[in-house]
Amino acid sequence: MNPRPKSVQQLVDVFKRLPGVGPKTAERFVMHLLKAGRGEVTRLTRSLDELQNNVRSCEVCFTFAEKSPCEICASDKRNKKTICVVAEPQDIFALEKVGAYSGVYHVLRGLIDPMHDAGVAHLKISELVARAAGGAEEIIFAFDPTIEGETTIQFIEKQLAGLPVARTRLATGLPAGGSVEYADEVTLAGALANRQQIKK
Amino acid sequence: MNPRPKSVQQLVDVFKRLPGVGPKTAERFVMHLLKAGRGEVTRLTRSLDELQNNVRSCEVCFTFAEKSPCEICASDKRNKKTICVVAEPQDIFALEKVGAYSGVYHVLRGLIDPMHDAGVAHLKISELVARAAGGAEEIIFAFDPTIEGETTIQFIEKQLAGLPVARTRLATGLPAGGSVEYADEVTLAGALANRQQIKK
Repeated sequence: MNPRPKSVQQLVDVFKRLPGVGPKTAERFVMHLLKAGRGEVTRLTRSLDELQNNVRSCEVCFTFAEKSPCEICASDKRNKKTICVVAEPQDIFALEKVGAYSGVYHVLRGLIDPMHDAGVAHLKISELVARAAGGAEEIIFAFDPTIEGETTIQFIEKQLAGLPVARTRLATGLPAGGSVEYADEVTLAGALANRQQIKK
Repeated sequence: MNPRPKSVQQLVDVFKRLPGVGPKTAERFVMHLLKAGRGEVTRLTRSLDELQNNVRSCEVCFTFAEKSPCEICASDKRNKKTICVVAEPQDIFALEKVGAYSGVYHVLRGLIDPMHDAGVAHLKISELVARAAGGAEEIIFAFDPTIEGETTIQFIEKQLAGLPVARTRLATGLPAGGSVEYADEVTLAGALANRQQIKK
């Protein structure tokens, strides 16, 4: 006998589509909701409805926001001539937490994955090139220092060729609290090659 | 500037209440849904609605089912005099997959946790005692072999004292494909003490 109710199986299948969620975890989610009761399920559906109704894509930088243009793109306190390019909106959340950046952003909505060759059509690259051509002074690439990040920088660099815009990238090197002994070779070689002048 | 839209933060907070989900995972779920688009969010809310509307607690065994009594409790092919007690409905799913059991079940909806002393009022123990007193011949405890499982068996044993019902528990020992060398001491001691006669 299959003792799993159809509605349970169906929700397990939907939860399984979330990143990093396998069948066991999905089932634990469903059972948690059933044990927690109606209030908890309602809380979740209501929040999903609000997400659906209130969140849209910013027409300038393609982050997710409740208004378009988003708060940062609309602010006259932000320098519109410096554009920090990130892979996902979460990267903006992390950078804004630091509070040290006063330019604007551009969300690519992913990176080029040379191993899986997903193509570049879904990425907001032509939109970035248009913004760069529209009077930007500096493009800062703020991708993860991975194969995907490097490939994406190289690809965009070709698109930007000839435009009078400075291009920089986040520094790579030892992370704060990191260890020379346990750092991988690529990190250590990069930290050595890009060694910084000690300020007097 | 806090670039996280309010509706995103709200859904992150609800997802964080799922078991094993921290703030980063919850945020990844929300971003996945936003990138996947309306269809995906609708699929999830619709499945949640169906769960809410279709799944109830079986009035006999307290599993989650689309009917009450559930399919197993209602089946005349199942022996109602043998009751297998489990902690959660998922344990029934696992046992039914084996296909070797023809009795019925009783879901406690948790185990006694002596370390956190959550009490026993929320567990379906008095309902089990009532079923045991109503003509059951055997109660099989099918809990995880943990402190919580042992404590729960001991507690229920006291409640069942005097009732003319056999009590058994799942065998403990080496799991199939397990290793004598790497088995923990409690498992090995138990496997030795409960060694089984080899059938000729």
